[in-house]
Amino acid sequence: MDVILDDQDVDRALDMAGAVAVMKRAFLARAAGEMVSPPRSAVRFGDKGPLVFTTGGTSGTGGVAGTRINHGFGTSNASQVTIVWSVEDGTLLGAVRGQRLGDMRTGAIGGVAVDLMAPRNADIAAVIGAGRQARTQLEAAAAVRPLRQVRVYCRDADRRERFAAEMTERLRVPVNAAPTPRTALADAAIVLCATTSETPVIEAEWLAPGAHINTVGPKGAGRHEIGLDVADGASLIATDSPDQVVAYPDGFFLPEVTRLRDLATLVADPGNVKRGSGFSLFCSTGLAGTEVLLAAELFRRIAAI
Amino acid sequence: MDVILDDQDVDRALDMAGAVAVMKRAFLARAAGEMVSPPRSAVRFGDKGPLVFTTGGTSGTGGVAGTRINHGFGTSNASQVTIVWSVEDGTLLGAVRGQRLGDMRTGAIGGVAVDLMAPRNADIAAVIGAGRQARTQLEAAAAVRPLRQVRVYCRDADRRERFAAEMTERLRVPVNAAPTPRTALADAAIVLCATTSETPVIEAEWLAPGAHINTVGPKGAGRHEIGLDVADGASLIATDSPDQVVAYPDGFFLPEVTRLRDLATLVADPGNVKRGSGFSLFCSTGLAGTEVLLAAELFRRIAAI
Repeated sequence: MDVILDDQDVDRALDMAGAVAVMKRAFLARAAGEMVSPPRSAVRFGDKGPLVFTTGGTSGTGGVAGTRINHGFGTSNASQVTIVWSVEDGTLLGAVRGQRLGDMRTGAIGGVAVDLMAPRNADIAAVIGAGRQARTQLEAAAAVRPLRQVRVYCRDADRRERFAAEMTERLRVPVNAAPTPRTALADAAIVLCATTSETPVIEAEWLAPGAHINTVGPKGAGRHEIGLDVADGASLIATDSPDQVVAYPDGFFLPEVTRLRDLATLVADPGNVKRGSGFSLFCSTGLAGTEVLLAAELFRRIAAI
Repeated sequence: MDVILDDQDVDRALDMAGAVAVMKRAFLARAAGEMVSPPRSAVRFGDKGPLVFTTGGTSGTGGVAGTRINHGFGTSNASQVTIVWSVEDGTLLGAVRGQRLGDMRTGAIGGVAVDLMAPRNADIAAVIGAGRQARTQLEAAAAVRPLRQVRVYCRDADRRERFAAEMTERLRVPVNAAPTPRTALADAAIVLCATTSETPVIEAEWLAPGAHINTVGPKGAGRHEIGLDVADGASLIATDSPDQVVAYPDGFFLPEVTRLRDLATLVADPGNVKRGSGFSLFCSTGLAGTEVLLAAELFRRIAAI
């Protein structure tokens, strides 16, 4: 391995449906006790940095071990690096720099959640937010449900129009900019929240009955993009990493973390997922080690090209 | 940064005298409170792995932050990676794989110790061990003292002969294989121990009066290449990382760790280094962050080529 792969290699060799499949395998490994996902760790450099380490992988046969490192002051996308070794013999498999791998990973985990938790016939999606994470969440939802209509809202009208145009082209599904969050939600069975807002961006009463919500943005006790009214109306709540939920420095936004199911248990027994009559809510926190598994898939595909 | 540098780049762009200078700057930064050297951390993957993280750098202006990661089952030299970021703005400066950078770093730290602690007129060196670390220790000693004679001992006669031939050629100093450790030590003012032995390889009474010893090999309470008789006869003992000394899982081999001086304090005030009339002993433990500083120097030099 002489070359660090980058965002363009990720786009060239990975596709969202494949990424969702890798994430499903990751959650199956987790359910089998073979996923290694310790809490993140950080090292500060005076008042600079920190370097943040998200380490993980799988311990079984053919397992991979690795870490994603990002620098707190990273001004460029390229400052983030994911490195992967074979668990079996310690061979260095490769490295990927940039943000795209992690974004695709987070999107694909959202796709696994939508696939398992959203109504089976869901075909209308609403997106709140118009950034990178909003794009990958929508791409992943489209990979697991045959969407026929999408509406996007963010505060900046230009950005939501641009998102609508780009994603219409990319997904070959009509994506329209909505003038308010409420009009975006309307009859959407899938709601993808990926903002940086520290106050709730939607209200429970705007949601369609039985809607499924992914929340990717802030989820701390004092700052969260989804309000407790949505959680109160939910009959099924899950997260990808209960370990990260309890590690929130300022506490998690949901007071009753015992209500949170581990997405891995849903993936392991999909026939037993009971949505109930309320909303379903997925709290995306970033299961450690999943970037490492997606990078390993990237190396396999690049080697095969 | 698209390319991971490797052992050949290290040999091409770095030299031992330059590496010793980088290490001196590292210890000066440590004395000034600007070196970041937290204890190593490790993540296990079932009964495989672990990934071991040696993270560190400097926090001041122009500081660099990074980590060296090696896999416990790494069978190939190339499985080890050092990655470096600018502390100021988070720019990814580069990555180096392989063992050579770390070996050169450990050698250079040994060179700093010899420069400060060994008798000023020392010109005969003995080397116990004939591996990679023995080579870099000798190379570093030769960079700080004008050696006129070197003797090497290891148990395998072929290996010590090969070491003698190679290092004679490399250093342009006569290096001879000795038939026993005692004959190697004889009148040597500098003794470099770099074995994997878990029992003492030399005895205090074989040493020349006032000799300086570097111990690079095992230093755990139950397994150590240097005996307590050497420490008892020493009037100056130092280490590069008191933090690593107290972090030895099975305890450090010296019961009185309070006797250990921090090499950084000697580097900061070289005029005040008092050798005393006994031996001087340097316990090399590997100050975290020093690989990162040497890698940063490598990137500067490669960029200038």
